[in-house]
Amino acid sequence: MNINYPYLLFVGDATDSLSIKMARSAADWSPEKCLAEYRLPGCSVTTGCPSMNIQEAAKAGAKSFVLGFANSGGFLDSSWIPTILEAMDAGMDIVSGLHDKLTDIPVLQQKADELNLQLIDIRHPVTRFRTGTGKKRLGNRLLTVGTDCSVGKMYTSLSLTKEIQGRQLPATFRATGQSGILVSGTGVAIDCVIADFISGAAETISPENSADHWDIIEGQGSLSHPAFAGVSLGLLHGSQPDALVVCHALGRQHMRGLTHQALPSIEQTIALNLAAAQLTNPQARVVGIAVNTSSVDADSALQICKEISQQTGLPCSDPIRHGVTSIVDNLL
Amino acid sequence: MNINYPYLLFVGDATDSLSIKMARSAADWSPEKCLAEYRLPGCSVTTGCPSMNIQEAAKAGAKSFVLGFANSGGFLDSSWIPTILEAMDAGMDIVSGLHDKLTDIPVLQQKADELNLQLIDIRHPVTRFRTGTGKKRLGNRLLTVGTDCSVGKMYTSLSLTKEIQGRQLPATFRATGQSGILVSGTGVAIDCVIADFISGAAETISPENSADHWDIIEGQGSLSHPAFAGVSLGLLHGSQPDALVVCHALGRQHMRGLTHQALPSIEQTIALNLAAAQLTNPQARVVGIAVNTSSVDADSALQICKEISQQTGLPCSDPIRHGVTSIVDNLL
Repeated sequence: MNINYPYLLFVGDATDSLSIKMARSAADWSPEKCLAEYRLPGCSVTTGCPSMNIQEAAKAGAKSFVLGFANSGGFLDSSWIPTILEAMDAGMDIVSGLHDKLTDIPVLQQKADELNLQLIDIRHPVTRFRTGTGKKRLGNRLLTVGTDCSVGKMYTSLSLTKEIQGRQLPATFRATGQSGILVSGTGVAIDCVIADFISGAAETISPENSADHWDIIEGQGSLSHPAFAGVSLGLLHGSQPDALVVCHALGRQHMRGLTHQALPSIEQTIALNLAAAQLTNPQARVVGIAVNTSSVDADSALQICKEISQQTGLPCSDPIRHGVTSIVDNLL
Repeated sequence: MNINYPYLLFVGDATDSLSIKMARSAADWSPEKCLAEYRLPGCSVTTGCPSMNIQEAAKAGAKSFVLGFANSGGFLDSSWIPTILEAMDAGMDIVSGLHDKLTDIPVLQQKADELNLQLIDIRHPVTRFRTGTGKKRLGNRLLTVGTDCSVGKMYTSLSLTKEIQGRQLPATFRATGQSGILVSGTGVAIDCVIADFISGAAETISPENSADHWDIIEGQGSLSHPAFAGVSLGLLHGSQPDALVVCHALGRQHMRGLTHQALPSIEQTIALNLAAAQLTNPQARVVGIAVNTSSVDADSALQICKEISQQTGLPCSDPIRHGVTSIVDNLL
C-alpha cells in the first residue's frame, strides 16, 4: 500500500464530529501529510486544516483525495460519485475507508484506468488469513478496549506508542481500523475481515517480536456493543494482550447509535475484558484508564480522572489533555 | 438458492469423521436427497450412503456433486479440480461449503458457462447486511451453544425443531453453517460474513415472527475457542435467544484443532453464555444440555447424562440416542 500525499481531506456535509474521525485522525497525527480539507455547504465540523476546493487543492499539489467520513455500515452514497470523479480529473488518487469498494464502481475504475490513478480501499484486506491458534508469541502486547465505540482507542494507542518510544523503548502502533491505517500507512481493518478469521488476522497484526518490544494495538468496538462485540472479542483473543487500557468517553447517554442500549460502567468493562482476555493470556492485566474528557472543562476533567483512579485503583488520564505518563509508568 | 438433487456426496480421502460433517448431515437429515457417496482410496469414513463413482452416479440420475468435506480455513485443494471437472462433464452442478469460492476458479466458471451448470458456494452470503441493532423482535428464539466446535449443535437444533413441530407448535430451523444450509436449503453461513455484520446478519436470520413461534438457531463455534469466539458472540447477540441449549461432546482432550487449549466445563459454558446473552436479552435462560455420547456405550451414556443433569439442575440427553423430550418439556 502506497498512499501518495499531501491529502485533500473530504468531509462532505458532515455534522457529527465522530463521523469525520478518519479525516481528523490524519490531520491530528499526520499533519505533514494533510494539505487541506474540502467541506460542502451544511458541513458544521472541521479537521482544523485550511479549507480548499478540489481545483485549489490540485493547484497546491494535492496527490490523494481522502473520503474522510464514515457512516454506520460504511455505505458509499452514490451522490458523492461526481465529486470523486472531479478529484480524479484534477489528478488525485482516491482513498476510501468505507465498506463499499471504490473498485466495485465501474465508472470510477474506468476513470482510474484512463488517468492511471489509484483507487485505494484501505479497509479491504488484501491478505488471505488463517484461523487463529491462540499460541503464545514472543514480545509484549497492549490492547486498548472501550466502554463503547469511538471513545478514543486509536488516539490512546498512538499516545501510548509515542510515550513508550520517548522512553527509548521499542514500540509499534498496530492499526486495526481505516483511520489508524491512514495515519500509519499499514495495518488491517479488522472489522472488514471474514468472521472466521478475526482472531487469525489479529494474530498476524502483532507477530512475534523481541522480548522487550511492545506492540500497541488499536482496539475496535466494545464487548458491550450489540453490533460489534464479536469483532472486539476476536481481536482481543488474537492480540493476546499482556496489558489492557480501558478507554471511555464522558457524556454518553447510551451505546453509540443505539438509544435503547445502556452503557456499561468502567468496572464492568474491566471485568468483561479481563475475563475474556484470559482465554489466550492468563497473565493479562488492566494497566490504566484513558478518558476522553472533551465534553467538560479542564478542572472537571482532572477531578473526574482522579475519582475514576480512586474507584479503580488504576492510573487514569485524558491522553490529549494530560498525556499518558502515569499509565506507561504503571505498564513498565 | 436452488440446489438440485439427488446429490452425489464427495468425501475425498477423508480420515476424520468430523471433517465430512457436511456430507453426513445431508445423509442423516435429508436422506431422500442423497443418492450416493463418492470415496477415494484411503478414505476411512463414510456417510452410510451407497458408494458410487461419478459415472455410476450420473447414470443413476445425480444432479449435484456436493463437496462434502471441510478443513480448518476452508481451502479448496487444487488437486480436486480434475474431479470437479469430471462431475461437471457428467452433467452435475457443483455445491461447495468451502471459503474458497468455486466461482473464483476460472477453469470451473468457464466449464459451468459452457455446460450451463450451477456453481453454488453455499457458504458465501449473497445478501448485503446491516450492522446489528440489538432491538427486541417478536417471536421466541432458541440458540444452541457449545463447549467446543463440532459438538453437535446442528444435530441438536434439528432434533429440537422436529420435537417442537411434533407437538403441533410452529418452529423453524435456522441454518448458520454450510451443513445446515445444505439440509434446509436456506440460511446464512455466519462465519463467512464480514466481521462488522455478524450480529446484523444474525438478526436477519431469525426475523420478527408470531408470538407463539420458535426459531431454533444453529449455533457456531464456542465462546471458549480462541479462533471462533468472535463469531459465536456476534451470533449470540444477534440471535437474542430466550433459551439456550448447551451442547457438549464426550471424550475431547482439548479444544478442536488446538492441542494446547483446555476445554471449559459445562458449568463455565453456561455462565459465559448466559452473561453474554443478557446484553441483548436479559431474560435469556439455559433450558438443557445436549451431549454427544457416541464415544461411550449405551449404559455409560445414560449414566453420564444423569450425572450432568444432577450437577446442573437441567435436563440432559443425547439427542441421537435419547431424543430431546425432556429439554423441550423444560423449554415449553
